[in-house]
Amino acid sequence: MSDRREEAVRYARASREAVLADLKQFLSIPSVSQSPAEPAVIKKAANWLADRLRAVPLDRVEVLDTEGHPVVFGELKAADSSAPTVLMYGHYDVQSAAPLDDWETDPYEPTVRGDELYARGASDNKGMIMACVAAVESVVRAGGSPVNVKFLVEGEEEVGSTHLADFLARNRELLACDLVLNPDVGMLGPEAPTIFYGLRGMYMCRLRVTGPSQDLHSGGFGGVVHNPIHAMCELIAGLHDGKARVTLPGFYDSVRPVTEDERREMESLPLGREEFQAQSGAPELWGEPGYGPVERAGARPALDVVCLEAGTPKAAIPSRAEALVTVRLVPDQSPRAVHEQLVSYLNARTPATVRWEILEWEGFPATLTDRNAPGIRALSSAYETVWGKKPLYCRSGGSIAAVGQIQEILGVGSVLTGFSLPDDRVHGPNEKLHLPTWERGIRAIVHFLYNLPEEG
Amino acid sequence: MSDRREEAVRYARASREAVLADLKQFLSIPSVSQSPAEPAVIKKAANWLADRLRAVPLDRVEVLDTEGHPVVFGELKAADSSAPTVLMYGHYDVQSAAPLDDWETDPYEPTVRGDELYARGASDNKGMIMACVAAVESVVRAGGSPVNVKFLVEGEEEVGSTHLADFLARNRELLACDLVLNPDVGMLGPEAPTIFYGLRGMYMCRLRVTGPSQDLHSGGFGGVVHNPIHAMCELIAGLHDGKARVTLPGFYDSVRPVTEDERREMESLPLGREEFQAQSGAPELWGEPGYGPVERAGARPALDVVCLEAGTPKAAIPSRAEALVTVRLVPDQSPRAVHEQLVSYLNARTPATVRWEILEWEGFPATLTDRNAPGIRALSSAYETVWGKKPLYCRSGGSIAAVGQIQEILGVGSVLTGFSLPDDRVHGPNEKLHLPTWERGIRAIVHFLYNLPEEG
Repeated sequence: MSDRREEAVRYARASREAVLADLKQFLSIPSVSQSPAEPAVIKKAANWLADRLRAVPLDRVEVLDTEGHPVVFGELKAADSSAPTVLMYGHYDVQSAAPLDDWETDPYEPTVRGDELYARGASDNKGMIMACVAAVESVVRAGGSPVNVKFLVEGEEEVGSTHLADFLARNRELLACDLVLNPDVGMLGPEAPTIFYGLRGMYMCRLRVTGPSQDLHSGGFGGVVHNPIHAMCELIAGLHDGKARVTLPGFYDSVRPVTEDERREMESLPLGREEFQAQSGAPELWGEPGYGPVERAGARPALDVVCLEAGTPKAAIPSRAEALVTVRLVPDQSPRAVHEQLVSYLNARTPATVRWEILEWEGFPATLTDRNAPGIRALSSAYETVWGKKPLYCRSGGSIAAVGQIQEILGVGSVLTGFSLPDDRVHGPNEKLHLPTWERGIRAIVHFLYNLPEEG
Repeated sequence: MSDRREEAVRYARASREAVLADLKQFLSIPSVSQSPAEPAVIKKAANWLADRLRAVPLDRVEVLDTEGHPVVFGELKAADSSAPTVLMYGHYDVQSAAPLDDWETDPYEPTVRGDELYARGASDNKGMIMACVAAVESVVRAGGSPVNVKFLVEGEEEVGSTHLADFLARNRELLACDLVLNPDVGMLGPEAPTIFYGLRGMYMCRLRVTGPSQDLHSGGFGGVVHNPIHAMCELIAGLHDGKARVTLPGFYDSVRPVTEDERREMESLPLGREEFQAQSGAPELWGEPGYGPVERAGARPALDVVCLEAGTPKAAIPSRAEALVTVRLVPDQSPRAVHEQLVSYLNARTPATVRWEILEWEGFPATLTDRNAPGIRALSSAYETVWGKKPLYCRSGGSIAAVGQIQEILGVGSVLTGFSLPDDRVHGPNEKLHLPTWERGIRAIVHFLYNLPEEG
């Protein structure tokens, strides 16, 4: 190990408590980006991060406006100006902590219990941002970075990165880089560092079913008008057949099947029915027959209504019901095609007693990346150094709009990984971060930075 | 017409503006009884009404505590102590005004537009209480009441009259009476004064369906666990077959069919498909085949999920979904039997991938009353005097817990009527009261009070 690399790893170990204290500060800012977002709180999180990046120090740090929430940009130049440039992607916004009652401790009062740090955003994604910051700080304090580093930390990942594409298009030069490190995905277990080569895409829409022109007394009209709650339930129930297959017409037609090799690799992952069941706490698993859970979660599409709201706790037939319908897409499904399939389904299945309407929809396709890219080799080797074993290669079932946008607009692929664990309850109550894994992750990024010039 | 009767009717006409102003005051108090009810507001409404009853004047007025919201009691003695005693039932609590956005004017700033008074509670039930108060005041000011009058105005009708049975049992003597006037039902049209001889009963429960032990990221688990929203929708969708019939096992077994005579009478009412469709604003009517809408709404049971809440507007599979399931019961269905049918249904239909639970349930049976009782004859004759035509006789699809409780505990039947119209949007946004009908109603109660000693 070179002296500098060794010194940087030593610095990363020594600064553990200070970085954890910083992370807690960052986590205490409730930077929820979903409507109605509080601009002052969003801004506070962006400014906090910018100040922390300045303290590294970087050469340049700015909070840049978008049409939505601001982007935090940072830049650090390597001593060797011909070194490759890595852009570290992250997001400082978080999902809402609702339902609050299910949290054991306040989501915005970060609390360590045992090896775990509990807070909204601990894993997704503030813990990952701080891992990058700590790693970059370590190489800086050890005498300077072996590569050029840029930070792109957005504030709208949890709402579909609405304004990121526009920001990327307006800042191509500023963001120019050779590869992106995106630690927003995770790993399969504390002893299983993981590199992801695929992400599912996303289709999302707000569906409204309307019956009577106003809420009706259920005494006067029960049995005489079709309750929109029932009509909505009938439509949602019909979206899957008895075997958990999505019934949208043509839904599976364009789905790219996995190869036999890839399926064998998926089946060899240390992740099967037992792990999914333990992590979910569901009474039994569920899903499309003929596919294992890894393939179902990563390489098969899934339709989930994530929100359904209708009526009030009084004896009235409501005039309408609303649902948020989401579909996780796989290669080669297109969001527009799925939208059209849903429209066909609704046209065919909605009875004349109610009307349907899609209030808004959006989406982006799935991505698959080259498993042999230099950045992936550099990270793989870093994981071997820290964990003493080769990483797993896996598709993620999640969806990150930024990955496709960066590929399309900057022409650069993303190295997808992360140090969040499957039981971290990302997006749910009691989200947590496994601190020993996080610390290994920081050291792995240090090695990744030193490996890059060799692989690049 | 006797001098006193004529004088009372004149007083009722002359005091119109003053009584309307009083009603507006009463309506401006948002006495919503549903949890979380604000005790200070409930108390304010009860006290306002007690003060108004004292101003009639009555002989005795009290606000009496219950385990829940208080009861307003009033008593007025007739000059002739052998005269019959009528107890006037009402409720000063109202349903929540949600969804607020759908109101054209503030629900608690009563507003007259044309012939209509818009406010939450305008029809249900504060307008009816004030009609009784105005009628009693008119006979008092015309020289004294021809009958003994009692007022029983509760504050929990909209939450199932939870503590009324206990209050009735503890106050049998105080409430002793020969008949009850209950104007909480309504009439079929402004030119169709109506006496109701039946009410549907009610079964209500809170159903929870639970899947994973916590909310799960829909990227990581979509396609692998059964979404409780989908499972709940499948269960609700299955509660009706393709012909709008309820599928609970044995649901229709104990339903008492109407006689051919009664069915003919129902079909002759000025209320059919067109009226129901116009009043509801639904694209098309819906319901059990083989029965007209009047029979479906009044003499057939109906199952309606009135509230369904699940998930949050974020990309998570929620751990649970909850629904409020209501059933309008007809003679001779029992709430307990329906509860057991629902339990059987849930046991048979819930897949092993989720669990179900009924968190709480309550109910009361339907009632049918004697159409030839003296109180009904007295009211019928009053309607002939004011409207110049015989009233319609009809079953109501609504449910009033108090009617069954008063019958059972005080041993007294209720005369069911009212001056709210089918398009008054009771329980919905823009609830209103048709003022010309309301004024006729006040005069009809005046006549009813003078008719009672003759019929009784």
